[in-house]
Amino acid sequence: MARVTQEHLDARRRQILDGAASCFARNGFHATSMQDVLKEVDLSAGAVYRYFSGKEELIAAVVTEVLDTVRGILERAARESPPPTPDVLIPRALARLREQRPAALDDGTWMFPRLMIQVWTETTRSPELAAVLGEGYRKVRTAWGEVVESYRDAGLLPADTDADAMARTMIALVQGYAAQMALFGGISEQTLGDGLRALMSVGRTARGA
Amino acid sequence: MARVTQEHLDARRRQILDGAASCFARNGFHATSMQDVLKEVDLSAGAVYRYFSGKEELIAAVVTEVLDTVRGILERAARESPPPTPDVLIPRALARLREQRPAALDDGTWMFPRLMIQVWTETTRSPELAAVLGEGYRKVRTAWGEVVESYRDAGLLPADTDADAMARTMIALVQGYAAQMALFGGISEQTLGDGLRALMSVGRTARGA
Repeated sequence: MARVTQEHLDARRRQILDGAASCFARNGFHATSMQDVLKEVDLSAGAVYRYFSGKEELIAAVVTEVLDTVRGILERAARESPPPTPDVLIPRALARLREQRPAALDDGTWMFPRLMIQVWTETTRSPELAAVLGEGYRKVRTAWGEVVESYRDAGLLPADTDADAMARTMIALVQGYAAQMALFGGISEQTLGDGLRALMSVGRTARGA
Repeated sequence: MARVTQEHLDARRRQILDGAASCFARNGFHATSMQDVLKEVDLSAGAVYRYFSGKEELIAAVVTEVLDTVRGILERAARESPPPTPDVLIPRALARLREQRPAALDDGTWMFPRLMIQVWTETTRSPELAAVLGEGYRKVRTAWGEVVESYRDAGLLPADTDADAMARTMIALVQGYAAQMALFGGISEQTLGDGLRALMSVGRTARGA
């Protein structure tokens, strides 16, 4: 019997995850069957079920992977000195996500934002997925909290800043950006960066002038 | 034949819209039938179809009404002198939305955020709903643009601020807030206000200290 390398196993897992993510982003979680996923990745049921027990495990793996990527970007940013301010960091994180998951749908649109809103809707129906997303959200919130602390340490924020409130506000920005991207398109990371810079300059025109 | 007053017609329409919104928020658009809506509002098919041709028209009316409310709040804010800054205006707008649509789901959660993410998912499938939401979004974006202009006029922002980028960023904040509210709960308007204030203070600790 041929030995299967770890590399091969990882590549196969990657292929299945990307195919499943495309299906979910395109048609939603409910309208996607395991048959659709098998067809998308061009593998047998035996090959796919060796890795994932079904749709629930697939969507959980996709969600966990995206949120782990976001967390990694934030943890690295918190260690930079000085840490990148939100108007720089958020567009950068979104650009990195685009690289990580270059998969586009057939019409050329970036897959991730559509996947995100499909996952949200499914989350309101599935306690299991809600638990997975909740855990990922908790970690991203902690990572953002560390970024805010690094702003404080660098003297960019007052010592009494509510780090968690700012963390949740930054997460809201990324979520809303994804929603607009999925629903209307035509919004770029640059737009969000410019908007953030404008927001951060409210009330300090004397300095900006 | 009894004359039906406009007041009665309006109240009936209101009752149907609120019931339909509850159904959509609770179970999503696809899983809701017109039978579910009739049962929710306790009216006959004849009574309901006199106002709305079906689910599509109901969801379009619900969406249009929410976005018109948001637009009204922003238009009034743009005329205030000085206009309320985003950390004040956004929590206020969310609090007003809560008053406008007090309807809570059976488990006590506020209906609007869940309705919002259900509408988003449906929008990716329905070109008709996408057109309705797109038109509402365009109007809210314009209204936010007017608020940003009033910030500029009041000397709160530099003259070269990208008003539309800031408008879209503010909309993203509200959308992301709704997503977190629907998915995880436990976030308040106050949290968003505190987070916004923190964001607006990045880099000006010398002044804040």
